[in-house]
Amino acid sequence: MTGPIVLLTDFGFHDPFVGIMKGVVLSIAPKAQIVDLCHAVPPQDVRTAAFHLRVSTPYFPKGALFVAVVDPGVGTARKVLWARTAKHQFLGPDNGVLSWIGEPVLEMREVNNHKLFLHHLSATFHGRDIFAPVAGHLAKGKAPKELGPKTKPAWEIEFPQVMRNDGAARGEIIGFDRFGNAVTNMTRESVPEGCHVFFGDSDLGLVSHTYAGRDPGEVMAIIGSSGFLELAVREGNFQQHFKAKAGDAVESRT
Amino acid sequence: MTGPIVLLTDFGFHDPFVGIMKGVVLSIAPKAQIVDLCHAVPPQDVRTAAFHLRVSTPYFPKGALFVAVVDPGVGTARKVLWARTAKHQFLGPDNGVLSWIGEPVLEMREVNNHKLFLHHLSATFHGRDIFAPVAGHLAKGKAPKELGPKTKPAWEIEFPQVMRNDGAARGEIIGFDRFGNAVTNMTRESVPEGCHVFFGDSDLGLVSHTYAGRDPGEVMAIIGSSGFLELAVREGNFQQHFKAKAGDAVESRT
Amino acid sequence: MTGPIVLLTDFGFHDPFVGIMKGVVLSIAPKAQIVDLCHAVPPQDVRTAAFHLRVSTPYFPKGALFVAVVDPGVGTARKVLWARTAKHQFLGPDNGVLSWIGEPVLEMREVNNHKLFLHHLSATFHGRDIFAPVAGHLAKGKAPKELGPKTKPAWEIEFPQVMRNDGAARGEIIGFDRFGNAVTNMTRESVPEGCHVFFGDSDLGLVSHTYAGRDPGEVMAIIGSSGFLELAVREGNFQQHFKAKAGDAVESRT
Repeated sequence: MTGPIVLLTDFGFHDPFVGIMKGVVLSIAPKAQIVDLCHAVPPQDVRTAAFHLRVSTPYFPKGALFVAVVDPGVGTARKVLWARTAKHQFLGPDNGVLSWIGEPVLEMREVNNHKLFLHHLSATFHGRDIFAPVAGHLAKGKAPKELGPKTKPAWEIEFPQVMRNDGAARGEIIGFDRFGNAVTNMTRESVPEGCHVFFGDSDLGLVSHTYAGRDPGEVMAIIGSSGFLELAVREGNFQQHFKAKAGDAVESRT
Repeated sequence: MTGPIVLLTDFGFHDPFVGIMKGVVLSIAPKAQIVDLCHAVPPQDVRTAAFHLRVSTPYFPKGALFVAVVDPGVGTARKVLWARTAKHQFLGPDNGVLSWIGEPVLEMREVNNHKLFLHHLSATFHGRDIFAPVAGHLAKGKAPKELGPKTKPAWEIEFPQVMRNDGAARGEIIGFDRFGNAVTNMTRESVPEGCHVFFGDSDLGLVSHTYAGRDPGEVMAIIGSSGFLELAVREGNFQQHFKAKAGDAVESRT
Repeated sequence: MTGPIVLLTDFGFHDPFVGIMKGVVLSIAPKAQIVDLCHAVPPQDVRTAAFHLRVSTPYFPKGALFVAVVDPGVGTARKVLWARTAKHQFLGPDNGVLSWIGEPVLEMREVNNHKLFLHHLSATFHGRDIFAPVAGHLAKGKAPKELGPKTKPAWEIEFPQVMRNDGAARGEIIGFDRFGNAVTNMTRESVPEGCHVFFGDSDLGLVSHTYAGRDPGEVMAIIGSSGFLELAVREGNFQQHFKAKAGDAVESRT
């Protein structure tokens, strides 16, 4: 037994799917410590899941095993991956969900040892049939080499890069939090000193570090808790107000 | 201490009700392992809770104690039941919620030993006042015979049967998942070979095993992860699209 | 290690914030037992969080550490408080969230020892950067005197008092549960015998102890599971039906 098993899915809370996964883990590793990272990833939104991992992994203990089940290709021939970094382990489908974990991967394997899966494999719920039992076996001490052969990922998602040019910069929206604040790929360092942030024609002003001093309804750009620039409407919903969506451009210029 | 305590309720997440139940369990059995199966059962929907148990119990370890608090009769004279199978234990109100657990019941008792309840019984929150403390006492090793006398359930819900006739079959919708997919009582075996599935006048085609190869908006019938036939609109919401509801007939014929 | 760490926040479930807090706790105290009390406090609604604590604390074991992160002043100079009663410990911002815990405070300290915080403090997520690591250190046995100096709260919220006068009484709505039932500050003792309950001009009749015998759509007043009077529409939503809000007056008179 090493660190906790950390679950990230798009299963939501309406159904018993996450609970069933925990039942499978505990059937194999009765003392496993299971932590819910988030189950509200928008359905099949691999990029949001990848981003959640990026901002979460630094805060989990050494030995934690992240299990990311956002898997539009479930039931197809897509591979299942296990990866190890200096600090953590990861399980996820080979669809790019592990692309942004922010730690160098020291070892990656294709998980294809059916002896570690549930006996009957469904076509639609590999969280229960593959990911949970493999996590349980790892928690119980199964050696990674028994998972399957070394491999490389077939799919990787490139983290969108901020373009800088002559004191200006251009990034994009990655996703939205529950309040409709837009999270971008820009950091404090990627916004040139003294620049205003623009979303389309809207001037959001200088980058703030707190919400203090803003009036309700005022638009603003703030460095969020993960170090990325966020666009917000004070006591409002940026996403709805601007009909913004992931991929929309964000600029900073004088 | 044996297996985990597995909670199934219709309490939702808006209020601290589930958290309070956990506090009561841990006040009695500080080392109890508590797992959330699902708390989003539609309010007072005993059949959905019964179905959740049916599809979940096979995946939990031996010794698990399922606590099902979907209890429209709370505060009335309805009994509280404890049941034991070869693998699991169950607590629930005597309203049929334990009818479909899919394991032969070896022993059933009426839980009426007030010494195991909280001192002050409310009329509306027996999850806190009865179910949680009894679960805690069982987790701590209290002998089942101390719960109360042997009994039989006053209420049972019959699992809806699929009618077969001359190469056709007729079943019904049991409930819906978060995506609006309809879960039915039909299995692969209950759909005659070569038959199409029909919902009213709509032809959903042959039974599929994956979503692959379907276009957005296309209706389809698929064997779900629990082995039951599900009706879906690819990247859509079957429940809303057809204004479907539990109990609606589903047919398969040539 | 003493009792469980009990989390109460307004973070919701859409984002990985609560999961990240757990990661921080477990990074410091790998064996900590963490319980979710509720994460659906309306954003920045300190009074609702304070009320949740009031009705929940009696049900948690001795030694439990409640961590209440409903913190509109995050990033400002508001203090962080630790409090100890005979039975429990509490962490929360100094904004009144700990005002109604219902247990005499034996010791209170300002948590200002930065050695116990994460190295990099964000301006917006002290749940991760301050509350979680301090909870982890307490769970691991750090002496409270190392948190910071003794203090008194700068902000306290007075629990709204019921006014009684000549066989009548006047209270108010504190909040609403997921069904739209209104929870008030009135108890059985604060409603004079034989009085009807009124909301504006609507007569809700005598106080009930169960929902039994009411017709769908009927308005009623019932003693809720926490001992406070609740206003309900049988199988309906009181909050929406009356456009009720926190602070609205509730009266009982003959």
